[in-house]
Amino acid sequence: MESELPLDKFLTTYARSVQVMISSPITRVNADLLRLLPALKLVATPTAGVNNIDLVECRQRGISVTTSGSEFSEDVADIAIGLLIDVQRKISAADRYVRTRLWTSKGEYPLGFKLGGKRVGIVGLGNIGSEVAKRLEAFGCIVSYNSKRKKQALPYLFYSNVHELAANTDALIICCALTDQTRHMINKEVLSALGREGVIVNVGRGAIIDEKELVRCLVHGEIGGADLDVFENEPHVPQELFALDNVVLSPHKAALTPESFERSNRIVIANLEAFFSNKPSVSPFNG
Amino acid sequence: MESELPLDKFLTTYARSVQVMISSPITRVNADLLRLLPALKLVATPTAGVNNIDLVECRQRGISVTTSGSEFSEDVADIAIGLLIDVQRKISAADRYVRTRLWTSKGEYPLGFKLGGKRVGIVGLGNIGSEVAKRLEAFGCIVSYNSKRKKQALPYLFYSNVHELAANTDALIICCALTDQTRHMINKEVLSALGREGVIVNVGRGAIIDEKELVRCLVHGEIGGADLDVFENEPHVPQELFALDNVVLSPHKAALTPESFERSNRIVIANLEAFFSNKPSVSPFNG
Repeated sequence: MESELPLDKFLTTYARSVQVMISSPITRVNADLLRLLPALKLVATPTAGVNNIDLVECRQRGISVTTSGSEFSEDVADIAIGLLIDVQRKISAADRYVRTRLWTSKGEYPLGFKLGGKRVGIVGLGNIGSEVAKRLEAFGCIVSYNSKRKKQALPYLFYSNVHELAANTDALIICCALTDQTRHMINKEVLSALGREGVIVNVGRGAIIDEKELVRCLVHGEIGGADLDVFENEPHVPQELFALDNVVLSPHKAALTPESFERSNRIVIANLEAFFSNKPSVSPFNG
Repeated sequence: MESELPLDKFLTTYARSVQVMISSPITRVNADLLRLLPALKLVATPTAGVNNIDLVECRQRGISVTTSGSEFSEDVADIAIGLLIDVQRKISAADRYVRTRLWTSKGEYPLGFKLGGKRVGIVGLGNIGSEVAKRLEAFGCIVSYNSKRKKQALPYLFYSNVHELAANTDALIICCALTDQTRHMINKEVLSALGREGVIVNVGRGAIIDEKELVRCLVHGEIGGADLDVFENEPHVPQELFALDNVVLSPHKAALTPESFERSNRIVIANLEAFFSNKPSVSPFNG
């Protein structure tokens, strides 16, 4: 149903009895919105991220939140690895080189770097991070991680803070959620610890990195390169990055394939079915 | 030593007693050249490919050939996977989209395809092919292959001909050597069996694919996409490809990282040491 009413008017007129909301990643489910939906009991999002949802307010109002669970983890991990190979071996940059006919006129393109043996640090070893780690092992990378807590069952080296992780790795892959704790967690000090040869891959959320600082480091050659699927103010991308060959820019699409879309829609339906038949959620958010 | 003499004159003057030649990948070690080097006993190449060397003539003259062995296999496999992810998930094309500011002006970029569950066929399951297979398993791909003979020890599905392999896979990765048997092995029929959704990755040699036919198939949408590190007449790349977004072009650099360069030089030296002390080669070519 489309309506010409303003959202608040529309909701108070039609939505006072709504029990379930299916939210898109761009809907801001904040306190103002929740106040207009007094009967709401469930917010079901077909994505993995919940940074658009005020989780504290939901908890206080007894509203459950479900996500796509681990459904997109494989896609995100694939992109993370694709981006890492790209920046290490200069795939996109070399493609530009060939397409602009420089291979013929200027000769060989500079070499990239080997993946095997490189120390790769994963920030956030949840569903996505674990899939990334599994793939990195097949490439002969040495995997370490930072996470809220040490995962005893996993063989990777744990660092209790991200600064120490950055100081001991050749590449950082950001896979964690954006929360008040992780906002701008990758700051000047962490980037400086990563160093001139280090590269950073972000498939989490843009604001986990202090973007201004990242741009400064890249422009001044203070880190080796960056692969970014996410940015602080999407679709705005800092234009200083457009001129850099050690950067791969991806329009926030790590989690998106038609195959996963279909599966995540099925998960939303399963969560709705569970809700209306008083069963536990298929994929509750455990923040 | 540099000399202004023409090559044949130089060789007959100075090189009649030369026992060992270190050949570069662009040196054509053919019958004409070998005739000028009557004392030659070893051609040591710091690469994996030997298609620049007349192996029949070498065998007849009792000349051994050594290669870099499996030294570059990991690098080549990394690029093969990087290219496959790139074309499936549209990494280079999306990077172009962001850099030309289309994300801001035109909105979302089309989705790519999931890697997990895809049937990937490897053509040539030698050192490189095996490294590719190992990586594909970590991505949840279903691996099959075509090779001179079935490898009993490996769990992948074997197809005795490449046409049948193409008909039963979503992506083909060409990892075999260029020989008289494999020249233009990927022809019109094989590409047609791969089909409109199928993609092809070539990290072998350009002439293994009938390039004209490949370009025709890509231009007419008869196959889904291509990732090419090698071409028939390098550095010439068919210019019809420059306009296509479902193609990733790489300037023949799959095997090249500084790390592997250094290791392959060490292998050349080990082969020379073995030769001069009458020991078996470290990495003989077994054609």
